[in-house]
Formats: sequence, structure tokens, C-alpha cells
Amino acid sequence: SSATTPIRATLFPGDGIGPEIAESVKQIFQAAEAPIEWEEHYVGTEVDPRTQSFLTWESLESVRRNRVGLKGPMATPIGKGHRSLNLTLRKELNLYANVRPCYSLSGYKTRYDNVDLITIRENTEGEYSGLEHQVVRGVVESIKIITRQASIRVAEYAFHYAKAHGRKRVSAIHKANIMQKTDGLFLKCCREVAEKYPEITYEEVVIDNCCMMLVKNPALFDVLVMPNLYGDIISDLCAGLIGGLGLTPSCNIGEGGIALAEAVHGSAPDIAGKVLGGDVASPLFEILEHFDPMFLPSFPGLPNNFNIQICSGGSSIIRWPLVMLRHFIESGITVRLAVQFGGHGLMGYNLSHGSQGCNLANPTALLLSSVSMLRHLDLHDKADRIQNAILDTIAEGKYRTADLGGTSKTTEFTKAIIDHL
Amino acid sequence: SSATTPIRATLFPGDGIGPEIAESVKQIFQAAEAPIEWEEHYVGTEVDPRTQSFLTWESLESVRRNRVGLKGPMATPIGKGHRSLNLTLRKELNLYANVRPCYSLSGYKTRYDNVDLITIRENTEGEYSGLEHQVVRGVVESIKIITRQASIRVAEYAFHYAKAHGRKRVSAIHKANIMQKTDGLFLKCCREVAEKYPEITYEEVVIDNCCMMLVKNPALFDVLVMPNLYGDIISDLCAGLIGGLGLTPSCNIGEGGIALAEAVHGSAPDIAGKVLGGDVASPLFEILEHFDPMFLPSFPGLPNNFNIQICSGGSSIIRWPLVMLRHFIESGITVRLAVQFGGHGLMGYNLSHGSQGCNLANPTALLLSSVSMLRHLDLHDKADRIQNAILDTIAEGKYRTADLGGTSKTTEFTKAIIDHL
Ligand SMILES: CC(C)[C@H](C(=O)O)[C@@H](O)C(=O)O
Ligand SMILES: CC(C)[C@H](C(=O)O)[C@@H](O)C(=O)O
Repeated sequence: SSATTPIRATLFPGDGIGPEIAESVKQIFQAAEAPIEWEEHYVGTEVDPRTQSFLTWESLESVRRNRVGLKGPMATPIGKGHRSLNLTLRKELNLYANVRPCYSLSGYKTRYDNVDLITIRENTEGEYSGLEHQVVRGVVESIKIITRQASIRVAEYAFHYAKAHGRKRVSAIHKANIMQKTDGLFLKCCREVAEKYPEITYEEVVIDNCCMMLVKNPALFDVLVMPNLYGDIISDLCAGLIGGLGLTPSCNIGEGGIALAEAVHGSAPDIAGKVLGGDVASPLFEILEHFDPMFLPSFPGLPNNFNIQICSGGSSIIRWPLVMLRHFIESGITVRLAVQFGGHGLMGYNLSHGSQGCNLANPTALLLSSVSMLRHLDLHDKADRIQNAILDTIAEGKYRTADLGGTSKTTEFTKAIIDHL
Repeated sequence: SSATTPIRATLFPGDGIGPEIAESVKQIFQAAEAPIEWEEHYVGTEVDPRTQSFLTWESLESVRRNRVGLKGPMATPIGKGHRSLNLTLRKELNLYANVRPCYSLSGYKTRYDNVDLITIRENTEGEYSGLEHQVVRGVVESIKIITRQASIRVAEYAFHYAKAHGRKRVSAIHKANIMQKTDGLFLKCCREVAEKYPEITYEEVVIDNCCMMLVKNPALFDVLVMPNLYGDIISDLCAGLIGGLGLTPSCNIGEGGIALAEAVHGSAPDIAGKVLGGDVASPLFEILEHFDPMFLPSFPGLPNNFNIQICSGGSSIIRWPLVMLRHFIESGITVRLAVQFGGHGLMGYNLSHGSQGCNLANPTALLLSSVSMLRHLDLHDKADRIQNAILDTIAEGKYRTADLGGTSKTTEFTKAIIDHL
């Protein structure tokens, strides 16, 4: 192909397995001669007062300038005085729609065949307003905000998307039988937009019924549009139908045409560096011994300050007595023990940076997200080429990472995709 | 068996298919000599000012007096000035916990085997507070309330239930990473109660991740306890895993030991009386011709006043142009056309009362709910006898109602169960 001026795109490799899977994307893009010049930004090691989070101002400026980017998983550090990385990105860049295509991958069998859904989630308001307070002792409230502006905006995006992708039906998911004013306004906006698209069937489905129908027969749906929390729930449910978040791409659309594609799975610290058997194992044991979520200690002998968080099974947080946790670790049972960035004198240490990665991660979600990014740039040839190579490699079933029951390393799987280009 | 003083229980046959499936329960209870004397109450035909709903004060008094009851589906009429029937029951009787066991039925295959879950839903507060308002034009908010009192109460019920039923694990479902104060309080209460049950494993799972894990591997869960809306969503999702709401029992636990078992599926007006081909078809067409949700007309020739609501696909509401609706009806396509109780001079007409039923409904959910009621009364012998007869009949697979792909009438299926007693 002829020489093109490359397009600059921001790349957030992210934490945990992030840098390893970002490496996979970079290699495949290079092999496919995708005309992208990456501008890499890592999450900072202290709170940037201009973003009130660990995201640096420069990294946000980079996305604003490039208008397009790709993001690996970022673990939100615990602690006060800073904002969640994901939420900061959504708010600062006004990423108003989160789009998640979810389709069955041949070569990876689940209980469901032929899933082919798109969830479009309002990404800026609803239950994520951050407005919460204690009314009196023992009584707390949180406020869900629905605005006409944000609802129309996401509805317009959903119908526009449906039309552009030849989709036939848009379902607005809601609980307006209970939240008549908030979800009622959301529906009203969807109906208004629907009228401008007579060729697309519009329906409204109550969220509880929607979840039941999705597990019984996902083929009933096509494009789903919904407020923030329902989108959070349903997009994960849909991912589960086809195998999990490790396989589903995601793209965030922002005001002014910004597109930030992202892998929505976690940073999988349990496989991001085999830290538990490595150098940092014994100081970790010490921390575990003294671990108290209220009191974040700093220990001598640790790579700078150290901040841990105990979680297991994806984003779920299981509170085990420490003695159990130690027992698990000693008997080689996998626990997701997130070693995270800290703040306020806690600082961080990214265990998988560079060569410390343990080469077990599945890059599929980030790769398919990078394909979404290419499509957003109208680079459909490159997008098709890369997407087909990914899907063919999975369908062939010869190279499979551990999460899919295989034994391939990240780099082997990556190489197989390159061979399929 | 020897003569026992019968226990009085309130029975709400409900609307639509309700009376038909309630009849099935009554016959099976009689055949099994379950010592229950039913006190039947129908939903009223106008708003009772003492309940602000179509529920009569007498029917609520009946549940309060008997402390135990069984409820068929009740369609909430549309209109202003009255409250939803289900919500009125929950609030007036302080039904604080909704318990839904969900297990695979042998004889009815779905994509999932060996599902065996219990969802326990806080039933009185959360997103169901009814507090909503417009802040400024185009900006509305609704308020979610979490209280320590209600959270402790439902957590205690969940752990008590888990222990009494030999369950090993309780998972609290939440979104405290976003709603730190409300869901955070809920978790705090669960943790407090968990400490009193060291023999039961306690874990906390974020709702999005929970939904993904449920569809990937429901065996990961045992008892799930959660705030109101999450319970609404997850209990329906779980029902979907084993075949739908037609197969899952439900029981509401209230203060002072009240137990109101209920079938949570809808009143299925599409099969509750084949009204569309019957006597009332032509006046219905007339209504459809003039239908306007804002203006509820009363027509001559109709059985008293008449009130309609258009819905389709379970609780989802699809808005079709009336001409389409008429077309569907004329070409024999099934539409769920709810003919409902009205109010304010609209009145109602229960199409399935008595012999007008069309004998197609599946009574399983109400039957299994009635078994829950018997267990609540510690009538385990009768409960086992009836439950086994139901499960055996389904497992045998000879008698199956239309929703499960069979051709049996409600009465045939009921008789088969009686034969299995
Ligand atoms: C990590 C969490 C704050 C986030 C969310 O709730 O939006 C995640 O679940 C997601 O879907 O991106
Ligand atoms: C009909 C509706 C108000 C109700 C609810 O949301 O609670 C229903 O979905 C249920 O689960 O009983």
C-alpha cells in the first residue's frame, strides 16, 4: 500500500496485563501497516491536581488533540482525594456513549450461538451522578439524574449507529414503571428520536424482563440503548453470553467526535506478573499480615510505598480473613490480589511493566477495540484485515490463551494473528 | 390423615390467567388434604380510598389477620390517583423480603443444568422510594433510599434462611464502587450480620460482574441478597436461566411473620380468555379505533366500562400504531392485549373469571409458590407431597402446557399432578 501520513492516536496501555496486551496491538498494527502513530501515556503515580485523579493532564490533552485513542484496563486505586480513572476519563472527555458490540465467536463455544447485539450505554449521568448523602443517621440517599440533553444525545447516537450498521431494531431499556420521571424522560427522548427513523423498529423493554429474555433468547434483540447503570449491567450480561469481557470490544464516543476504544475487562493482576511467586511475594505476605483497609501502612523493603486491594473473581470483592488468603497463596490457589497504584504517600508499582509481564493475558478485547477505533477512522480495509485475522485465529482454535482453556502465551497468540493477516 | 383445624389463608386469584391457576391450586390442595381454608379476595373495581389503590381494605385486613396468603398475578391498571397493586401490597403489609428459589426442573431442559439459587430481595425501599421530581426543565432526579433498618432486616432474613436451608454461601450484590454511600451502607449491614454466621461464607459481588458470572456459570452462587432494583433484575435473570417466570415460586416475608406467596409472572391476558376471537372482539376493535391513552372512553355495548392497555412480550410495552394492532388481530397474530380493571368510571371486566378462561395457562409458578406457603407454615409433609407431584409431572413430560411447548390444558396438567400425589 502507498505511504499515508499516519494518524496520531493516544494509547493508554493501562495497568496489570494492560502493557502486555497493548504490545500485542502495536505489533499487529505494525504488521498490518495500519497508519497509526501511537502516543503512549501511562497512568501517573500521583494525583494530578488538574484532573483530580492519577490521570495526567497531558494524557487527557493528548486524547483531546488526537480525538481518537485506545485504552487498556486501569485499576482504580483506593483512597480519598482522587477520582476513579474510568469515571474521570468519561467526565473530562465527555464520553457520552459507550458502545459494546457483542457477537458469538466461532471457535469459542458457549451456551449461546449467533449472539449479535450492540449495547449503547449513556455514560455520563444517571446513577453515576456522584450525588449521595446521609439524610439522618442510618438513612442515606443517592440521586439519579436524567437529563433531556444527555438522553437525546445517546438516543441519537444509537439510531444513527443502527442505521449506519444496517440494524433493524432499537430497544430502549428502562424501569419507567417504577421511575416514571427519570426513566420516563429517557423513554420520551428515545421516542422522539425514533420518529425520525421510521425504517427502524423501536420498542421499550423493562430491564428485568429484558434480562430474562436475554438469557432465554438473545436473538430477540438487536441494538439496545439505555441509561448508565442498566448499560453497565446489561453490557456485562451480554459479554457473559459469548464468553466474557475478555472477548468484547468497547468504544466510547465523546462530544466533538472523540472516540476512545477500550478493553473493559480488569487489569487481571493475578496473571499480570505472577507477583505472588516472585520477588515481591514476601513483603506482600507481610502486608497481608497487617492488612487493614482502614489503615494503609507503608513497609520497609517494598518497592517504594505499596498499596494493596483484595479482590477476586473479576470486579467482585471477596473479603477473606487474611489467614485464608495466605493459605490460598501458599497452596497455589489463584487469588486476584491487586497490587495497585496508591496515592498520598502510598504510591504505586506497576508489576507488569516491561519484561515483568507473565505473557498469559488474552489481548482479544483490546484488539477488537482497536478495530472499532480503526472503523471510527473509516479505515475499514485495515479494520477488516485485522478483525478477520483475529476471528480466524480464534476460529482455528490452535492458539488459545489460558482464559479460553488453551496454553498459548500472549505473544504466541499475537504471532498467530499476524500470520493470519 | 387425622382431622386438623384448617389454617385460614388469604387467596388473591388475581387477574387474567390468575383465577384459572388459582383454581388449580385449590383442587390440588383439596386432593392432597392440605389443611388450608382459603379466604378469597378479588381486586376491587374501584379505588379504595383507604388503600389508595384497587386493593380493598378488607383484603389487606384478611392477610393481616391470617398472616399468610397466596397471590396470583395482578395487572396494575393505568391511570392517576391510585397506586400499583403490587407496590401497595408490599408497602401496606411491610413485605420486606422477596424470596425466590430458582432451580432447574428436570423434564424442562434449558441451556443450564443444575441451577440452584435463592435470590432474596429487599422489597420496600431503594429505587422504589417513589421520590422523583423535576429539578429544572429537562433535568429530573429520582432518589434511592437505603436505610440501616431495612438493610439489617433483609440481611438477617437472608442469613437466617441460608442457615435454616443448609446453604453454604451468601453473596451480597451491590454497586458500591459507584454508590458508595447507599450500597456501601447496605454492604456494611450485610457484613455485620455475616459476622454472626461464621459457618456461612460471605462475599460481595458487583452487580455487573454478578450478571456476567450468572450467565457463564450460575453454580458459582448460592443465596444472593440485594437492594430492591438489583433484586428485581437478578431474580428475573435467574428465572430466565431455568425457563422463565412461569416456573419460579416467590414468597414475600413481612414484619410480624406475614408470608404472602405469589406467582410473579404477569396476568398473560393474551391467553387468559381468547377475548380477541370471542364475544368482546368487536367492541374491542371499536376501542382500538379510538384508543388514546390520554382519553379513556366508555363505549356502549361493552361489558360495563372498559379499559385497555397495549403491551406485548411480557412486561415490555411495544407501541404499535393502532392500524398495525388491528392488522395483527385480524391476521391471528398473538398480541398481548391487556383488558384490565379500570377506575374512575372506567371499571373493569375480568375476562377469565369462571368459565371464560381459555385453559391454556401454566399454573406451576403459583403452585410452587403455594408450596412455599406451606413450608412457611411448617407443613412440610404436605409441601413435599405437592412439590414432588408437581416436579414428577413436569419430569415425566407427558402433560405440558403450551408455554413449555406442550398441548395440555391447565385442567389436564392439574389432574396429572393430582394423579401423582
Ligand atoms: C469499574 C466501574 C466503575 C465501571 C462502571 O461501573 O462503569 C465498569 O463496570 C465499567 O463498565 O466500565
Ligand atoms: C411490576 C413491577 C412493579 C414489579 C417490580 O418492579 O417490582 C415486578 O417486576 C416484580 O418483580 O414484582
